[in-house]
Amino acid sequence: MSNPLHFSVIRQCGQARTGVLRLPHAVVPTPTFMAVGTRGAVKACTMEQVARTGTRICLGNTFHLWLRPGADVVEGAGGLHEFTRWPHAMLTDSGGFQVFSLADINSVDEHGVTFKSPYDGARIELTPERSIGVQNQLGADIIMAFDECPPYPAEREVVVEAVERTTRWARRCLDAHARSDTQALFGIVQGGVHADLRARSADALKELDFPGYAVGGLSVGETQAQMELALGETTPHLPEGKPRYLMGVGKPTDLVRGVLRGVDMFDCVLPTRNARTGEVYLWPTGRLRLKHAEFKHDHRPIDPLCDCEACTQGVKRSWLRHLLKTGEIPALTLCSLHNLRYYQRLMERIRREIDAGTFHAFARDYLETWGEAPPAESSA
Amino acid sequence: MSNPLHFSVIRQCGQARTGVLRLPHAVVPTPTFMAVGTRGAVKACTMEQVARTGTRICLGNTFHLWLRPGADVVEGAGGLHEFTRWPHAMLTDSGGFQVFSLADINSVDEHGVTFKSPYDGARIELTPERSIGVQNQLGADIIMAFDECPPYPAEREVVVEAVERTTRWARRCLDAHARSDTQALFGIVQGGVHADLRARSADALKELDFPGYAVGGLSVGETQAQMELALGETTPHLPEGKPRYLMGVGKPTDLVRGVLRGVDMFDCVLPTRNARTGEVYLWPTGRLRLKHAEFKHDHRPIDPLCDCEACTQGVKRSWLRHLLKTGEIPALTLCSLHNLRYYQRLMERIRREIDAGTFHAFARDYLETWGEAPPAESSA
Repeated sequence: MSNPLHFSVIRQCGQARTGVLRLPHAVVPTPTFMAVGTRGAVKACTMEQVARTGTRICLGNTFHLWLRPGADVVEGAGGLHEFTRWPHAMLTDSGGFQVFSLADINSVDEHGVTFKSPYDGARIELTPERSIGVQNQLGADIIMAFDECPPYPAEREVVVEAVERTTRWARRCLDAHARSDTQALFGIVQGGVHADLRARSADALKELDFPGYAVGGLSVGETQAQMELALGETTPHLPEGKPRYLMGVGKPTDLVRGVLRGVDMFDCVLPTRNARTGEVYLWPTGRLRLKHAEFKHDHRPIDPLCDCEACTQGVKRSWLRHLLKTGEIPALTLCSLHNLRYYQRLMERIRREIDAGTFHAFARDYLETWGEAPPAESSA
Repeated sequence: MSNPLHFSVIRQCGQARTGVLRLPHAVVPTPTFMAVGTRGAVKACTMEQVARTGTRICLGNTFHLWLRPGADVVEGAGGLHEFTRWPHAMLTDSGGFQVFSLADINSVDEHGVTFKSPYDGARIELTPERSIGVQNQLGADIIMAFDECPPYPAEREVVVEAVERTTRWARRCLDAHARSDTQALFGIVQGGVHADLRARSADALKELDFPGYAVGGLSVGETQAQMELALGETTPHLPEGKPRYLMGVGKPTDLVRGVLRGVDMFDCVLPTRNARTGEVYLWPTGRLRLKHAEFKHDHRPIDPLCDCEACTQGVKRSWLRHLLKTGEIPALTLCSLHNLRYYQRLMERIRREIDAGTFHAFARDYLETWGEAPPAESSA
């Protein structure tokens, strides 16, 4: 049986590494940032526009797509790539995070989770088998195990239970996976902010020999130091030769910190969500809030040296501000594309710095000019 | 002093004609359909996307742009072309239509109109001089005289007054126009649905020797037969060698009927407004309402033979329906671009049929397959 995922580490620089991730629909240089397309579309952008930002993996959300339009619709279209006409690789999450964070939960037991649909109130059950079944129908290149995400903060005992159940569910996900020749299933490490539980979760999942591993349950309210600690205790327990995905993270500085800890893949709604409020990035370490009055007469592009769709067309801060203030959609589109391009440029730069062996100096400077604390020692 | 507008009629076919309209920022084959960019943006589209539909003239709205972001902002950016980065020609209306249809009017007298700003309630006065002054600041290729638009229906006496005042205001607009070397000022014919008043208005404005003429006050609630009659009594009174613009019209069949009466330019919000409700056109004479359940599993493009951005990318009806139902913006964008492209394809076809001398047969078939009455005799 063929393997849908091939990963090679190209160059190490401390824990940081560049690599190449070969998937059925794309060859992706890592570290990579993935765009979030919750309901089968990146908010305010066409898929063609997103592809032009350099994005090579787009996320779909199993929870949302399963409820609307339904996995049968997506499968009937020929899968999520064909349904959305996204030309590169896709990844679907398991629905675990959404069930635990968005849904009105009726019960959680060993079998799975029962909750009320936020769309029509229907009583629905999601189990490891069901999540994988739906993800098999959706057909993304990478699919995720169904995990139990403990709330933050949570008692240690609750996190211990979640880690153990996540491992048992991970095994059921592997057993349920019917398309392992075309879809790579990743395990998800839990363990909250407890170093020993992170290590325990990673070790247990490593035993199950997934083609890739994700770190879940971070960026949920813990401090940056807690996130860094939890991550630092996780990645050393994961196999060197397999891709590592830090879920739902994060700010540009979080990406740099994650790469320092050996992370290869990231996703976050931040670039597009911020864009829709008029918050845009300046290379390398700045940010504008375009709704502010100071931009009323500022006729410069967002960032004159940026190569995104908005900046290369000379789209003006003053025009974007006007459209943001009057609720006109093209500003949401163009700011989103600008921010997605910023994230891709950051990943390109990170890869170059790692390949040149200069990533730690870059990371230190980058965090410092953003006004952040330097990376913790162990990552150097 | 140079002339900002050159118009040549290329071929006549009854009253219908093709032509070339040379403007400072574009050479435009006519008959042409202009996209509406009310606040300096075509709703849900980037300017680059609109340009790719084949649109060569984009409208801006003096009333809205004057109030937000302010004519000084647009002028400071280098004018509306530069502010919006629209690469082709622009046209601004005078604000007359909006003042009379949208605003809370305090008074109308010979001097002008006083109304409350819909943005902040401020008391504002718009006069012919002010409208032209603002349009000079905005800097579009074509600007419009400030006219009095009578309501529909209105007493004949009210329409007579509006026609006479519109003529007096037209003269004041010509006098106030400070940039006649770079901006062409069009007069606007009023007269409601009264044939003799339309003729009187056109004759009076013809005396003033504008570089182009618009027909205003139609598509405001009158029947199709009334519109056709009013238009039929107007265009014969306008000079043959100058462009004629039917304001705010209309449905695809209205464009065909307008061309039959010798109209060269059209604008309407319909293609983009309909798109945002999921109503899209099929070539040549069909329409889909994409929110309907029948499209849930319909994985075809909107129109497989269409060359718009959505259809050439293979964007699916099922995906668009899903996004429309869940409120995702890319569907609004792609349906808008599809409909704008439909309108441009229709104008391209109309121009070819006129040049081939077969326009009347085409028009008859087109109206018939849409299930509409044939054009009135006088136009044949």
